Amino acid sequence: MGRYDLALIGFGGVNRALAELISQRGDRLAEELGFGLRVVAITDLRAGSLVDTDGIDLAPLLAAEPRELSFAGLVGGSADPRNEWVIREVPTDIVVEATFTNPVDGEPAVSHVRWALESGKHVCTTNKGPVALASRPLKRLAAERGVSFEFEGSVLSGTPILRTAERLFGGLEITGVQGVMNGTSNYVLGRLEEGVDLPVAIAEAQELGYAEADPTADIEGHDVQLKVMILANEVLGADLRREDVFCEGISSITPQDAQDAVRKGLRWKLVGSATRRKDGTVEARVAPLALPGHHPLAGISGPVNAVAFHTDLLGTVTVSGPGAGRIETAYALLSDTIAIHQRHDADDTAPTRLVLQETHRD
Amino acid sequence: MGRYDLALIGFGGVNRALAELISQRGDRLAEELGFGLRVVAITDLRAGSLVDTDGIDLAPLLAAEPRELSFAGLVGGSADPRNEWVIREVPTDIVVEATFTNPVDGEPAVSHVRWALESGKHVCTTNKGPVALASRPLKRLAAERGVSFEFEGSVLSGTPILRTAERLFGGLEITGVQGVMNGTSNYVLGRLEEGVDLPVAIAEAQELGYAEADPTADIEGHDVQLKVMILANEVLGADLRREDVFCEGISSITPQDAQDAVRKGLRWKLVGSATRRKDGTVEARVAPLALPGHHPLAGISGPVNAVAFHTDLLGTVTVSGPGAGRIETAYALLSDTIAIHQRHDADDTAPTRLVLQETHRD
Repeated sequence: MGRYDLALIGFGGVNRALAELISQRGDRLAEELGFGLRVVAITDLRAGSLVDTDGIDLAPLLAAEPRELSFAGLVGGSADPRNEWVIREVPTDIVVEATFTNPVDGEPAVSHVRWALESGKHVCTTNKGPVALASRPLKRLAAERGVSFEFEGSVLSGTPILRTAERLFGGLEITGVQGVMNGTSNYVLGRLEEGVDLPVAIAEAQELGYAEADPTADIEGHDVQLKVMILANEVLGADLRREDVFCEGISSITPQDAQDAVRKGLRWKLVGSATRRKDGTVEARVAPLALPGHHPLAGISGPVNAVAFHTDLLGTVTVSGPGAGRIETAYALLSDTIAIHQRHDADDTAPTRLVLQETHRD
Repeated sequence: MGRYDLALIGFGGVNRALAELISQRGDRLAEELGFGLRVVAITDLRAGSLVDTDGIDLAPLLAAEPRELSFAGLVGGSADPRNEWVIREVPTDIVVEATFTNPVDGEPAVSHVRWALESGKHVCTTNKGPVALASRPLKRLAAERGVSFEFEGSVLSGTPILRTAERLFGGLEITGVQGVMNGTSNYVLGRLEEGVDLPVAIAEAQELGYAEADPTADIEGHDVQLKVMILANEVLGADLRREDVFCEGISSITPQDAQDAVRKGLRWKLVGSATRRKDGTVEARVAPLALPGHHPLAGISGPVNAVAFHTDLLGTVTVSGPGAGRIETAYALLSDTIAIHQRHDADDTAPTRLVLQETHRD
């Protein structure tokens, strides 16, 4: 059975959850999937870096309190993240990028991805930045090096949105995409419908863990803007920049607005949409919309997100599922490794470092 | 470019719509998909059979009034459907089964599929009968002969339910499946909520073309029962027979019940579900359920159907889309041919009859 050696770049919630999956059910997954996963390097802004080409023992790292974790004192460890060295020089098959999203230029994640692809390594990421802002050059680079660049988790965590469009809609023309793709806005709009004021609803969302410490990106639509760019570029083949995507958040909606809408059978949702124009170009925008009750996105609320694909032959097909979550997003990374395996396993030309090993069944 | 020669078994709405797709956009599809489709045989209970191994000219057949279509006077035509001879003896790559669904033993569709597989031909079908009642032996036969048996359209027309489960959920454990999978019941329950009596609502559904002349299978849940069997067997690996699946329809629900539920924030839906028990076996049932507003199936109504997959790592992922429709179901057949091509194109051992030909672009 083959095995892939991973470098985890960023050791926050998502990559920790992936490490937990590998640590707790790696053997069962290997039996089902036909390949194993082994972590040989971890880098983190706070904890530093840790390398063990024989495989890192994950259990003690996962047992430690995240804020107290430091790799400095460990064998193969350093207080310095050493990202470029780890990504370029440590022998790994897949670099798993899960650092923070920078919505302006995607850095340093764009560089992380580029270093990995340049070094002939596959990349999985859940980071919207590199995908929304640099996917064309990064995909070109991946193609040149014969490696994969996978990013299902950049939209709706592990809910299979991008792969549904890529794999299950052959022969269809997708004419447009609409999504409810931000749990914080969903929660806040639901509370406005119940008469709660915006600042109170936002504070509640923060307490419940939906919203970031700074909820601006959620409330003003910037988070959805990046996701819409990803959908427009990946699903509709556009090449939009951030300034091409009109963006209005939900901060002007009052409890009165929300309640008036409900009385008329409407539900306010923060909708990101991308539509093909008659001339073939793509218009993308983010704005609150009052959707009629029968609209496939009208009932989407709270932590559930959804994307509706409008097609020529099938009409509208909608996929809904978790929009966030540590384990749900880590599953996206697992699904990316499956995609890499499916593409490269039978492909002699791919520069894989698969190691043959015996499997031991219990 | 490769090309697949098709035999269409049954020339009702669905296979006519497939013929229209091939006739009207076959060239464009071939360019996109990398293979062409050509119809060389058609059989139909009413119209008889027609064979032309150089390719049937579809336009005049599609221009004719369906009820007046007869193959008897045409070259290669006969008033006799000659199903077994056409399926076994006429040289074709794919047999497309779209005759009526027999919910008792699946015949004659089960025989159609078996004859095709025995003859080393791939099969696509939208017919619930053979899939719900005989998929194990038919899949075994297909595997023995190195051919494919594809049936995405047997559940929710072209909405990709079975392929989502098969292709996009690797590494997940699916613990249960719930579906709202019958447009007639959906419509009728919606009208009950508006205070309309059951017989009136059923008559309306018939007028609108949702319900069959005999709406019993829709209203009493038997249509959903077959779909639940397909989900239980294909997605959860069960091997259920019809008598294993409890089935209660919606005929006992009154407008009063439906309206009382709405006042409590509930929506009655006819739900088909399959759940894995602790001992590993699968329980499947069909029954009306009053779903709370936040349930992913609560907002599914009218011609839209949906299936919710409950999983360990991702929670619930729901796919909704058209539950029926000529073109939507024909798209399922097209997606089946894509699956066949993907599986066998690079596979030397498959007994395909791909003909190399030049492609002419406009």
